[in-house]
Amino acid sequence: MPEFAKRSLDIHRKLGGKFEIASKVKLETRDDLSIAYTPGVAAVSEAVKDNPAEARALTMKGSSVAIVSDGSAVLGLGNIGPAGALPVMEGKALLFKEFANIDGIPIVLDTHDHHDIVTVVRAIAPTFGGINLEDISAPLCFEVEDALQDLGIPVFHDDQHGTAIVLLAALINACRVTGRSLDSLRVVINGAGAAGTAIAKLLRCIGHDASVCVPVKDVLVCDSKGIISRARYDGLNHPKRELLGFTNRQDKSGSFKDALVGADVFIGVSVGSILNKEDIQTMAADPIIFAMANPIPEIMPDEAIAGGAAVVGTGRSDLANQVNNVLAFPGIFRGALDAGAERITEHMKISAAFALADCVENPTADHVIPDPLDKSVAPKVAEATARSWCEEMGS
Amino acid sequence: MPEFAKRSLDIHRKLGGKFEIASKVKLETRDDLSIAYTPGVAAVSEAVKDNPAEARALTMKGSSVAIVSDGSAVLGLGNIGPAGALPVMEGKALLFKEFANIDGIPIVLDTHDHHDIVTVVRAIAPTFGGINLEDISAPLCFEVEDALQDLGIPVFHDDQHGTAIVLLAALINACRVTGRSLDSLRVVINGAGAAGTAIAKLLRCIGHDASVCVPVKDVLVCDSKGIISRARYDGLNHPKRELLGFTNRQDKSGSFKDALVGADVFIGVSVGSILNKEDIQTMAADPIIFAMANPIPEIMPDEAIAGGAAVVGTGRSDLANQVNNVLAFPGIFRGALDAGAERITEHMKISAAFALADCVENPTADHVIPDPLDKSVAPKVAEATARSWCEEMGS
Repeated sequence: MPEFAKRSLDIHRKLGGKFEIASKVKLETRDDLSIAYTPGVAAVSEAVKDNPAEARALTMKGSSVAIVSDGSAVLGLGNIGPAGALPVMEGKALLFKEFANIDGIPIVLDTHDHHDIVTVVRAIAPTFGGINLEDISAPLCFEVEDALQDLGIPVFHDDQHGTAIVLLAALINACRVTGRSLDSLRVVINGAGAAGTAIAKLLRCIGHDASVCVPVKDVLVCDSKGIISRARYDGLNHPKRELLGFTNRQDKSGSFKDALVGADVFIGVSVGSILNKEDIQTMAADPIIFAMANPIPEIMPDEAIAGGAAVVGTGRSDLANQVNNVLAFPGIFRGALDAGAERITEHMKISAAFALADCVENPTADHVIPDPLDKSVAPKVAEATARSWCEEMGS
Repeated sequence: MPEFAKRSLDIHRKLGGKFEIASKVKLETRDDLSIAYTPGVAAVSEAVKDNPAEARALTMKGSSVAIVSDGSAVLGLGNIGPAGALPVMEGKALLFKEFANIDGIPIVLDTHDHHDIVTVVRAIAPTFGGINLEDISAPLCFEVEDALQDLGIPVFHDDQHGTAIVLLAALINACRVTGRSLDSLRVVINGAGAAGTAIAKLLRCIGHDASVCVPVKDVLVCDSKGIISRARYDGLNHPKRELLGFTNRQDKSGSFKDALVGADVFIGVSVGSILNKEDIQTMAADPIIFAMANPIPEIMPDEAIAGGAAVVGTGRSDLANQVNNVLAFPGIFRGALDAGAERITEHMKISAAFALADCVENPTADHVIPDPLDKSVAPKVAEATARSWCEEMGS
């Protein structure tokens, strides 16, 4: 076991849970009790009952997000179940608090059944201002998220949209660095799970700035069997069939290496060490590479650069241009909570991506995305997200 | 609106939620992130996956209790729904933290359906070390609690058992003060909802001390139609039919005032101002009165004493002998968590009641139960609860 893993185990065993409840009020006298609890709290309960919108002002609903997982796709560990997922969800709760002052509440679920997960999230929704779905396997994650969009609070699967938003921000700056326009890009996405699908969907809506919707015209998505194409229709599940509606407009077939020929951008959300510098050389000049497989990228940056890559990003903290969800989800939810948003729209995601890209004042090949620990990022993402919701609502 | 209610509303509006998440670890450097979150946390997830019992040592499961309500019976407000219930559940979370260092997580549910509530609690259970059911109306509360006893963590409806345990502790000391023996008592319980039913069930098991089970032989339970008796069988719901199995052994019929004649103990969990001193005079000499209707007791203490009562308790903080659940639930759950208990048994409840009674060194008529703000109580209740589980398990 690596040294950091052993240290992590030791610290978890010492702490037994990484967060605790902290009271905002003191509870020392009978008067304190009568204000925070009975009988005074009855007036608060009645105010909320009479006007449920008051829950955002008077209760935890205004600042809390449930972090919901069934443990079916945790990190690179696969389906390790709810108990195994819990330490990860607790870590996520810490990030919510640290970066956006949001009270994230881990809720791990002892079910992988679509209907049950939807029932549970619908039932617990009055407690929270938002639902962050986390580490749920595809295609279940799509079905669950889709079924919950009418809840009246944002329901956001971070493995899809968090990744897509941060990737998009990095891509915006990579285009700035290489003098490209977004809508002219030829993009290959390798991996058609949660992240790959969400990236493809977001690229469909992107424009030159957050207010213009001009789709990236040429996107190919590949899974383990190669390019997702009409020829494969009968063997595709529903989410992959949906991808055919707006990707692969020239209906290409072949392997993902066939897809790569002449492409401007490679986005890997798949498995490690599947590309070498010769593959990069088949791409357009000065290609942009985001090799986000963890912990081993699809290609290491030095090899990609040897193959001619102009910009390379990965998911790793020890390499340049780390694409890390923590740059998006705290600010997205903070903005949604601040605006009282009922859901996270495509427009909000794209506004967040542009705001995130703009956090880098002078993008360079080694710096297309802010440092994940930069705490000035989330407030800017939050502001753009909240503004975007208000614009859409005309308020 | 009373002054304290206005102050409560103001404070809730200022705070917007009464508790927050506090991290136990710092998150400033990449190294911090790699220990609390990825990649270090993967080792913790795998350890829990390999041995789910490790969740108690390595995650929030060891210290957290979900406070679950459907908002169907909140304080004296009735069915005000989940949002209205949320301020109360947050207050309960503060009490858990303050008195027993337990991280209580409010979960309010947008359903009153028995099957859905059971589905939700079963699903979220891996997250928590215990489930505190709260403010769920009878008979739904009985059905839900019964259906969840095999979860492997304690599921405890506080409105039933918390009230019953504190009442029993007060009754133990009232017997000490008046020189009575518990098993010889003639008891009348007015109110056959959650609390009244739980009190009747607990009296069935009580002995002279926590280790001897000798039922209180003569218990009459009354609802709004009078004494629950065999003559009313066809009109009774299932929980009330169950009560017939161990109460009213002489099969009396009549009003609750008929029941009162000659009784040693009146336990009111019903509505205010239904007794006067003449009613008390029909009871046995030196009767014991617990008039717990809120905010107006069934009879005020001065009038009960004028009628001959030897000991009087209520639910009110401004009167002597306040029967308040906060004396029980923090210690009960603390003890259960410490012992890794899989449920709360009758033996644990009775042990907790005796430990709580013993917190009063020299009981008097005005002091049969500790002050609710006495923070030395919960550790003693916890110790007795944990010891009792270990005794039952033979460990």
